[in-house]
Amino acid sequence: MTSADPSANRPLQIAITTGEPAGVGPELTAQALAGAAAHWPGAQFTVLGDAQLLAERARAVGVDWDALLAQGPRVRVEHCALGTASQAGKLDAANGRYVLDLLDAAIDGAVGGRFDAIVTAPLQKSTINDAGVPFTGHTEYFAERTHTPRVVMMLAGTGKRPLRVALATTHLPLKDVATALTIESLVETLRIIDRDLRQHFGLPAPRILVTGLNPHAGENGYLGREEIDVITPALTQANGEGIDARGPYPADTLFQPRHLDEADCVLAMFHDQGLPVLKYATFGEGINVTLGLPIIRTSVDHGTALDLAGTGRADAGSLMAAIDTAVSMAGHRRGG
Amino acid sequence: MTSADPSANRPLQIAITTGEPAGVGPELTAQALAGAAAHWPGAQFTVLGDAQLLAERARAVGVDWDALLAQGPRVRVEHCALGTASQAGKLDAANGRYVLDLLDAAIDGAVGGRFDAIVTAPLQKSTINDAGVPFTGHTEYFAERTHTPRVVMMLAGTGKRPLRVALATTHLPLKDVATALTIESLVETLRIIDRDLRQHFGLPAPRILVTGLNPHAGENGYLGREEIDVITPALTQANGEGIDARGPYPADTLFQPRHLDEADCVLAMFHDQGLPVLKYATFGEGINVTLGLPIIRTSVDHGTALDLAGTGRADAGSLMAAIDTAVSMAGHRRGG
Repeated sequence: MTSADPSANRPLQIAITTGEPAGVGPELTAQALAGAAAHWPGAQFTVLGDAQLLAERARAVGVDWDALLAQGPRVRVEHCALGTASQAGKLDAANGRYVLDLLDAAIDGAVGGRFDAIVTAPLQKSTINDAGVPFTGHTEYFAERTHTPRVVMMLAGTGKRPLRVALATTHLPLKDVATALTIESLVETLRIIDRDLRQHFGLPAPRILVTGLNPHAGENGYLGREEIDVITPALTQANGEGIDARGPYPADTLFQPRHLDEADCVLAMFHDQGLPVLKYATFGEGINVTLGLPIIRTSVDHGTALDLAGTGRADAGSLMAAIDTAVSMAGHRRGG
Repeated sequence: MTSADPSANRPLQIAITTGEPAGVGPELTAQALAGAAAHWPGAQFTVLGDAQLLAERARAVGVDWDALLAQGPRVRVEHCALGTASQAGKLDAANGRYVLDLLDAAIDGAVGGRFDAIVTAPLQKSTINDAGVPFTGHTEYFAERTHTPRVVMMLAGTGKRPLRVALATTHLPLKDVATALTIESLVETLRIIDRDLRQHFGLPAPRILVTGLNPHAGENGYLGREEIDVITPALTQANGEGIDARGPYPADTLFQPRHLDEADCVLAMFHDQGLPVLKYATFGEGINVTLGLPIIRTSVDHGTALDLAGTGRADAGSLMAAIDTAVSMAGHRRGG
């Protein structure tokens, strides 16, 4: 932070996309922001969604939404009209476009500098696909809309020593994982992790531990050759660029305190190698961060929980953790 | 237990193979058995290993081995001579045959009814391979020596509500996992888990939760078809045989208390899908059980820890848990 920067003292501007209108996103947003003044005193929130829907769902879970909005600039709604009225728990493809409109408004605002970070509540892919729009996921959409050739999905817990797990591949059939890994893709993934952990997480020298692809990290080629042919050369190249990445380590013994205490992030080779343990460890308080974007985006790590929508029984812990992380990342990016 | 069974009142006979002589197996065995009378009052232990080596390593870690053996029948050594003197931490292929001799003696004794269960300390595959004997692992060796066509590797924690994770495939390169899964192999795996949990774990109606192979269990075929083509048909067939197996569930969200509380065992499709979370959850107290054998075999879930051998700093927790489980399984098998 320099005193010459006129933006340095303005509150951090956080956009929240409330996601699938039939899901828990709108009500969790209201619950999370009910304590915004206490939790995030240095931030202001723009809630993207249908104003009437948000008011209804807030009321349903006992949040005095009107009073919160009346308090002034801390929480404001940027209205975006539903395609059709939404009932909690009932998906309707007529609202597929609405969900994308929220994302577009948030991304445009962040790219244009109006928002310092975006937090996304869950959406339902099928609502968008059923509306005739091909859509594979938040992460891919953010990459495409910001013209980012490669992004990295990282899940994290919060707390003093958070477990962070990034993925070298994400939503691929298991049979396609081995061939999807290349030296180039791994090096680029490591560069993105290293850069974003420095710039947005306040880690001056991020330490990355890398798993093998095969059981026991391949046992010197006995159980697979990707460690020798792909992962180790990628690590050598990344190390040559000053990136502190080590491995490949057997995934089954890497997630132990004696290793994790030495790491800022674990890079797992594929989805089900890294995420079961991350989600076990974070117990509903995990979050999802998209690294490599020109903007900051964090997310809950759960789905729309249609069966809980409107009941107030869904847990806002993951959304609050996602907001925590977005505020922290935005602060680091600004130089705080 | 019936009063007509003359063996019903004799102590359970547990064999312990002390494994790689340069590793921590001998000293952990001594440490674990130092409290045998208190921990396992209904069991007697036959320690398979070189008598002099065992005495030396026990002494090195402060266990009064001679006094323990002098107490009578609770702990006895069945001597098997080393190929060459062994130094802690130094592998020597001249002892490869010795390690196998221990296993052979234990297996022969269990098959012949002299032992009710076998607990194996870790061995070093390379010691055996360097001695010119092809050897892929304890589990495979036990299967081969007992003419068992299919065994199932299950790892477990201990405690009141233990997490148990069985594997549908084990030591395969990741790229070969998808093709290795067949309806038949999965059904047979489920049969073995169901039968052994009934017979050896005292669970009258085991509940098995089954993961998908692909991320998000394939998302209805969108991220892979094995759930539809292989796993679901296998579950249908197993259910038809009275096996309570459910799934396929996404692996990243299955390992949560609300699911695990409903399960006696999780069947994961491959090594690094199930074991990172199991080992994270059990923190050095995990054990390995081979299901499907005609005999009972449990094991530590760690390696030879050559760097710790002779220091007394290795943790006997996993070996003690493996002995706990072997004693419990043998008791259930006997009908207790």
